This record gives sequence, C-alpha cells and structure tokens, in this order.
Amino acid sequence: MTPTNPLEKWHQLVRERSPEGLDELLADEVVFYSPILFKPQYGKALATFYLAGALQVLGNEKFRYAREVVGTHDAALEFETEIDGLYVNGIDLLKWNDAGQVTEFKVMLRPLKAIQIVQQKMAELLEQMGGA
Amino acid sequence: MTPTNPLEKWHQLVRERSPEGLDELLADEVVFYSPILFKPQYGKALATFYLAGALQVLGNEKFRYAREVVGTHDAALEFETEIDGLYVNGIDLLKWNDAGQVTEFKVMLRPLKAIQIVQQKMAELLEQMGGA
Repeated sequence: MTPTNPLEKWHQLVRERSPEGLDELLADEVVFYSPILFKPQYGKALATFYLAGALQVLGNEKFRYAREVVGTHDAALEFETEIDGLYVNGIDLLKWNDAGQVTEFKVMLRPLKAIQIVQQKMAELLEQMGGA
Repeated sequence: MTPTNPLEKWHQLVRERSPEGLDELLADEVVFYSPILFKPQYGKALATFYLAGALQVLGNEKFRYAREVVGTHDAALEFETEIDGLYVNGIDLLKWNDAGQVTEFKVMLRPLKAIQIVQQKMAELLEQMGGA
C-alpha cells in the first residue's frame, strides 16, 4: 500500500505560516531533531514547539523550497531563505508512517553563519515567550 | 532515458576512503557547497580538494549512511559518524547529469558542536598540507 504522503499538507502549512495544522500532521510519537542541539525532542508537544518556532524564524517572504527528493516514507526538502540579509540554506528530512503522519522531523542548515543567526533568533523568540 | 546513477561509485569510494575515483565521478563543471562556508567552490579541482578533505575528516570506522532518498537526478544521503567521541549527523545532497557525473555536491551537518569540530579538523588538515 502506498502510504498517504504528508508533503502537500506540510507545504500548505508553510505557505500559511500557520502552526495550527501541526496537530493533524504529526504523529503522537514524532521526534524532532534540531539543527543546533544534539538532544532529540520526543513527542508532539515538543516537536510542535520547535516547528512553530522555526516557522516564525525561517518562514518569511524569502522562504522557498528549492529541491525535493521524495521516497515512499521519507523526503528531503531543501530550502533557501534570508534572515537579516543573510543567506540561509537548509534541509527538512521527514519520515512518515502509513497513515501519512510525520514520525521524524530533522532540520539541517548551512553555512555556519546561517546556523548562528538562527540560533540567535530562536533564543530571542524563547525570551519573548518567557521560556528562556 | 534513465540517467546513470553515480551512487554505487560514490559508496565504493567512501568505503575505500579513496579520493582517486573522484576524477571519474565528478563533472568538470561540478560545484561543491560546504557545510561551513557560504561561497560555492566551482570546478573539479576545488570540489576534489574539499571532498578528499571530508573523506579524511569524516570517513572513519564509525561512518555509515543511515538513510537514502533517491530521485532521477538527485539524492539525499544521510550519514552518521563520530569524531573524538562526538556525534556527527549529516547529509550529502548530490545532483548528477544524464551521464551519471555529479554536477553538484552539497553537505550539511548537525548539531552545532559537530560543525565546530569538523571546522577545527579541516583547519588542522589544511595546516598539515601547508595550505592554511
């Protein structure tokens, strides 16, 4: 059976910069892997927290997906954007189950300066939220 | 026409940690994108230089490919390794032409500590080579 593919839903969510759809998209047991932190973030609550933050930090009007390689249960989505005029190149690595729910979401970024500015912006966001 | 896929050759080269095969694998006009530097490295000579360095720094006995997503002209190869006991997770993003020659090779790494140790090891390697 070809599994339901979550990519259309994910793209819609990114276009709308709206984290509301994450609840439907993510499996309860999803694991989020940060481009910065070693520690995996287990479960829907933490994955939603980090992905909502990423949408806010990365998802501006310059954001676009540049390339996609798609398998039956995995996809690699390469993206480009700018933050404060700085070029950010990254990849979303998704894995999903037969129901089309995302069970693993991993993000990597390049170059080093891009990672540093994303780290800074995420820290600022957490401070605004009173979480830091 | 289904293009010749360069992945088998690439895997053999990685297993043997031998950069000799790069000349056959890479297109003359290949572009290498570093996980650290913004600047693209144009042409076979520079791409060979950086990939040979990467093979030396990353390609130890812990190195393994963990996941592959493969399209007709693109592939995303996720890998894991350790350097000085530190976990390194990364992705090779390859693009190839109809002749099966690699025209684009991009590397991204996570987490941040992994990028920092790779940067340090690459700098040491360049120093040894008298290039820094």
